[in-house]
Amino acid sequence: MAAVEFFYEFASTYSYPAAMRVEEVAAKAGVTVRWRPFLLGPIFAEAGWTTSPFNLIPAKGRNMWRDLERITADLGLPFQKPDPFPQNSLTAARIATSLPDDGKRAAFSRELYRMEFGEGLSITDAEVLGRALTAAGVEPATALVAAGSDQVKQALRATTEEAKAKGLFGAPSLVTADGELFWGNDRIEQAVAWAAKGGSA
Amino acid sequence: MAAVEFFYEFASTYSYPAAMRVEEVAAKAGVTVRWRPFLLGPIFAEAGWTTSPFNLIPAKGRNMWRDLERITADLGLPFQKPDPFPQNSLTAARIATSLPDDGKRAAFSRELYRMEFGEGLSITDAEVLGRALTAAGVEPATALVAAGSDQVKQALRATTEEAKAKGLFGAPSLVTADGELFWGNDRIEQAVAWAAKGGSA
Repeated sequence: MAAVEFFYEFASTYSYPAAMRVEEVAAKAGVTVRWRPFLLGPIFAEAGWTTSPFNLIPAKGRNMWRDLERITADLGLPFQKPDPFPQNSLTAARIATSLPDDGKRAAFSRELYRMEFGEGLSITDAEVLGRALTAAGVEPATALVAAGSDQVKQALRATTEEAKAKGLFGAPSLVTADGELFWGNDRIEQAVAWAAKGGSA
Repeated sequence: MAAVEFFYEFASTYSYPAAMRVEEVAAKAGVTVRWRPFLLGPIFAEAGWTTSPFNLIPAKGRNMWRDLERITADLGLPFQKPDPFPQNSLTAARIATSLPDDGKRAAFSRELYRMEFGEGLSITDAEVLGRALTAAGVEPATALVAAGSDQVKQALRATTEEAKAKGLFGAPSLVTADGELFWGNDRIEQAVAWAAKGGSA
């Protein structure tokens, strides 16, 4: 079965609508989604950025928030800007990395995005993370301990390195089996169509 | 009749497919397109950029060229990367500004984009500019002289200032009568729908 890798970052605004709709778009085309949490921070740092480009260029940031408001309204998703932005996504990414990609990782990720950008909650808050884990059917205490292991830390670093090697510079991004890169929530349909046409991973 | 302002920059890659399809999308919704050539250079300079962000972030640039290749293939448009990139767009923008927005400005702009990103030709070349003018039904020598007038230079500066005041930070961008800003070739449909629904300019 054709597959597409969905690279997402918990601090990334457009990853929110993307995470909420990628499975539906892929399912319609018979494509499997591989959920690949990674960190943009190390990639942005190489560009000399110390925060989100949406903060560095205020006009770009204003448009992004308004655009996200329109997109979530169209999708019937709640929207609330988190403060501060961007949120520190390290713990969330480690937790997602530690979960099996059998539906639990996706369920946790969607619930956390809904809390972050739908309710404006802090994703560094252990109680918030715990609620997202519970919603995904995972026992929070066990998951939080597992997420702190050296193995998980190393796995997340490896995914981030892999993302960079595949040419990623932003999130969300989708990569097909033949290495074709698609950037952004706007490119989910094209990436899935590409995977369905030729890719098998 | 509802209208949408189409702000475009001749050095901007995504302005090429946008210029080629905006009239068709707008016509289907009964929306009029106002062609507003402007310069991104002065806006980028305020962000501290001395060239295109696609050159400043190589991974972003590689993805953009590949993405543009896919987009133009889908639209059945020719594609050829111009060298150097970005092209100096000052003279082209002045010429477009000098032409009446009665179809001639749009026709010249589309033809010049086709030559620049479809054939890879230089838009600083007077012969290239002349061919685009002729294709638009405009006498080249007269237009080239008119484009150098103080009035036209001032009008282009005013459009660029207006674009900045409206929150533009990239091209293409579309603005509706109520001031709603939509950025990118990907947002033409949403901008036109917004204009058709409520805007009248």
